[in-house]
Amino acid sequence: MTSPYLDKHREKLDAAVAACASREYYSAYDESPSPRVYGETAAGEGKAAFEAWLGQPFPLETPGSDGTVSTERSPYGFDLDISYPHAHDVDALLTSAGAGMTAWRDAGPEGRTGVCIEILERLHARVFELANAVQHTSGQAFVMAFQAGGAHALDRALEAIAYAWVEMSRTPRTAVWEKPGKVPLKMEKTFTVVPRGVALVIGCNTFPTWNSWPGLFASLVTGNAVVVKPHPSAVLPLAITVQVCREVLAEAGFDPHLVTLAAEDPTDKLAATLAVRPEVRLIDYTGGNAFGDWLEQNAHQAVVFTEKAGVNTVVIESTSSFGAMCANLAFSFALYTGQMCTAPQNVYLPAAGVETDEGLKSPAEVAAGIGAAFDKLLGDDARAVELLGGVVNDGVLSRLQAAGSKGEVYVASRTVTHPAYADATVRTPTIIGLTAADSDVYENECFGPVAYLIATSGTDESIALFRDTVQRHGAMTASMYSTSDEVVARMREAALDAGVALSENLLGGVFVNQSAAYSDFHGTGANPAANASYTDGAYVASRFRVVQSRRHI
Amino acid sequence: MTSPYLDKHREKLDAAVAACASREYYSAYDESPSPRVYGETAAGEGKAAFEAWLGQPFPLETPGSDGTVSTERSPYGFDLDISYPHAHDVDALLTSAGAGMTAWRDAGPEGRTGVCIEILERLHARVFELANAVQHTSGQAFVMAFQAGGAHALDRALEAIAYAWVEMSRTPRTAVWEKPGKVPLKMEKTFTVVPRGVALVIGCNTFPTWNSWPGLFASLVTGNAVVVKPHPSAVLPLAITVQVCREVLAEAGFDPHLVTLAAEDPTDKLAATLAVRPEVRLIDYTGGNAFGDWLEQNAHQAVVFTEKAGVNTVVIESTSSFGAMCANLAFSFALYTGQMCTAPQNVYLPAAGVETDEGLKSPAEVAAGIGAAFDKLLGDDARAVELLGGVVNDGVLSRLQAAGSKGEVYVASRTVTHPAYADATVRTPTIIGLTAADSDVYENECFGPVAYLIATSGTDESIALFRDTVQRHGAMTASMYSTSDEVVARMREAALDAGVALSENLLGGVFVNQSAAYSDFHGTGANPAANASYTDGAYVASRFRVVQSRRHI
Repeated sequence: MTSPYLDKHREKLDAAVAACASREYYSAYDESPSPRVYGETAAGEGKAAFEAWLGQPFPLETPGSDGTVSTERSPYGFDLDISYPHAHDVDALLTSAGAGMTAWRDAGPEGRTGVCIEILERLHARVFELANAVQHTSGQAFVMAFQAGGAHALDRALEAIAYAWVEMSRTPRTAVWEKPGKVPLKMEKTFTVVPRGVALVIGCNTFPTWNSWPGLFASLVTGNAVVVKPHPSAVLPLAITVQVCREVLAEAGFDPHLVTLAAEDPTDKLAATLAVRPEVRLIDYTGGNAFGDWLEQNAHQAVVFTEKAGVNTVVIESTSSFGAMCANLAFSFALYTGQMCTAPQNVYLPAAGVETDEGLKSPAEVAAGIGAAFDKLLGDDARAVELLGGVVNDGVLSRLQAAGSKGEVYVASRTVTHPAYADATVRTPTIIGLTAADSDVYENECFGPVAYLIATSGTDESIALFRDTVQRHGAMTASMYSTSDEVVARMREAALDAGVALSENLLGGVFVNQSAAYSDFHGTGANPAANASYTDGAYVASRFRVVQSRRHI
Repeated sequence: MTSPYLDKHREKLDAAVAACASREYYSAYDESPSPRVYGETAAGEGKAAFEAWLGQPFPLETPGSDGTVSTERSPYGFDLDISYPHAHDVDALLTSAGAGMTAWRDAGPEGRTGVCIEILERLHARVFELANAVQHTSGQAFVMAFQAGGAHALDRALEAIAYAWVEMSRTPRTAVWEKPGKVPLKMEKTFTVVPRGVALVIGCNTFPTWNSWPGLFASLVTGNAVVVKPHPSAVLPLAITVQVCREVLAEAGFDPHLVTLAAEDPTDKLAATLAVRPEVRLIDYTGGNAFGDWLEQNAHQAVVFTEKAGVNTVVIESTSSFGAMCANLAFSFALYTGQMCTAPQNVYLPAAGVETDEGLKSPAEVAAGIGAAFDKLLGDDARAVELLGGVVNDGVLSRLQAAGSKGEVYVASRTVTHPAYADATVRTPTIIGLTAADSDVYENECFGPVAYLIATSGTDESIALFRDTVQRHGAMTASMYSTSDEVVARMREAALDAGVALSENLLGGVFVNQSAAYSDFHGTGANPAANASYTDGAYVASRFRVVQSRRHI
């Protein structure tokens, strides 16, 4: 089979497939928002495109909708006032979603893969508009929104498409089978990739594109229709996504209802309704544990991929560069105000102190070192907001406010004034001192800019607590600092047992909360924080089925 | 990493991997029990080895067992009277099962794959003993037990290992990632395949090895410990399997408790207890729908692979060879007394008749043609038993006895006397005439030697009923007869929609109930009869996880 879109994008697909296999560096979408890369007018045009949506009805058709909903407010302090079709009649929505699936199936892996990468190209062409949309729904600072919400999200989407392509291509379209014998048996066999059904993608507030696109494209490229249920506070990035999907599908001759937006009022509980419908056979979810666990336990008719929450952990035993370690940790705590599912929270270190190039450092001194790094990074309000972004919701703020009562406030949070958005809510992280006995505090995720320095009886206890906390409560990331090969080896072993990825001695420009598409797996599926990983074979293999026919020849 | 066992078996592994990709013919284990293949003494020695177990305690250690159970009776009319350790203390069993998993994980894909193929070699060396064990638990005739229960089961096991090998090898053990930039970032990354936990394999009565080995080896080779819970009526084939697994594991320096046998008294409901234990993270099940559905809905902590039951369907529109069609269908109905999950049950054909090379044939005439083929195949008792085998249990017998009241008895079942086993229960199939209106009869699986010829208003209705029955009640197989390209095309489309594999115009030595390892998928996972397929990527990809670590270099 040939596909004009696949021919156009073949080089990119092949490069992505090769990078997934080698795990070497690759990126298909430039992460720099510089005019030298994207041209002088791109940033301004993107901002204008975003602003043109404000206060308007967003032009999308959602089958079975009734009226509109308008639910978004920028963490930078203004209502978006964009209205979207209010998903209402679930029967009509799911019937329309499934109607085009046979033609989409018959397009084959080649046809679907070409269309999906073309969608990424069109999204890339609107990357500045998307970055503004992500910024003003998630609260991410602009550059981060451009990267994590734009370029990196596109790379993660292409990665998912590449994995699905490999998986769909494992079985040939036709084969001839000939069994030797007195009477040889010869058959022609045909193998067809068929979809599972309607896929549901449930978006989150903080990473509406980065966390939704892998599942969306993995399901779409394998032949399924996709209903996108955005977080009510982060609709626009996914509305633009759905708009582009529908545009390309229609141009390519497919039913645009293969991708639909199901916007809701927060009281609708639409995700729970959709998730148990018999038509829904795949669910991708990013968000809190309670609903994620509910999905895993109740949506029996579907394959459920969840990314929930955990307690990300750092173990410090010693370091060759106290300054670099503090700077690296400070950046990880501060980036997007700690509102990343990958941001570290629990730092286990010996009460007796950490050996460093600047001598033995007590927990209070480590906190002071990180505090000093905060001062450098965040001392200037105008620079600070470009790293911190805005506080995404009141829950984060109240957890931050409550954190001080949980232990000793080593470093206090500071209110930052945004130079451009007077009503933005911006805070620096706080660092709270605890001891190993405070498990009731540190065994819970405190999503937001709160880090715990937890004094242990020594590195044995630090590693034991790390292993135990992650096994029982999950983690998306872990990191460690040690100059001892023996301690590194023990931490690697503990990380394997706990099923969490480990970053060792990050002292430069790589941060534990960042993962690189095609090379780093995001989540492992091996601990309670997530049952899936971006992207491995398990993330794509069960999104389709192979149906064969056979005949004598 | 090197592995002596992998070096030894590398050629076989590579050939299996290649066959899975090409779907061309391959077999690693000769299906002919002929002395010319296996030697003059092999058959006798295997029979003697089987007989030596009778009346004896089977020498296996099951951690936490208490006393013994003895639950097997041959469908050929005698008690096996073999006693097995009675699984009792589930805590002790699961703790022991998991204890060796870290060393098994650390053996890596190479080490584990080598050990697993060595296990297959040792099972192959005992294939005649296994064939006798399968014969006298399932009731399969000897040659079928040798093939389906021995050689073909080994091929299916190797296929599962090959898929898992490919899946585990997709990610390199180490990689160097270098991101260009003003300050290039360079990291070394390590990727480790880690197990999910303890795997539970729940065996069935009719195919204790063929249906259990794919899941057993897929879970074991990916690093998991495996608890094998056999059907109480078919313990011996899996006891031998577990014995061989433990022997090879111990020889290779691993904990033999990585594979354990959990034999039960039928009233224990041990599978249900094990299935919801938090340690159990993978479940492979073959059996009835009720417990399979229960597993899918209750074992949330595990990935559940089920092969349940459905209504296998044949659509007849026309044929170029009435005699060959009737002979082919008769064989499929008769083979192992229709006690295969792949045996056809519902034959839809126009009430007005089927165009054939012998003229238009009414449903009654088609039944008569199949009846005549039965006479040829099964007319002689001594030959008949070699095809039919024995009736596996009383449930099959009572369904057969009740079938006559459901419609018009076109062909009656006949009692066959086994020349060697006077107490064996052997029956030929019955063919019952129904109409499309009798959906209350034909929409249920009637496991055993009962076929329904269902007269429809024409092929449009036949295809509609096929599609609808399979979508709602599932099917493991489907077949069709038509000389019309247009009808073939419509059936292919219906089979894709229903998610069932289709065999077209089988008129020779290939039968709808047979699937060839490495080429034919067994089950699709796309209809209610099974949620998994032997073997595709989805069958192996979620049995392990990849955990990475990374560091600057």
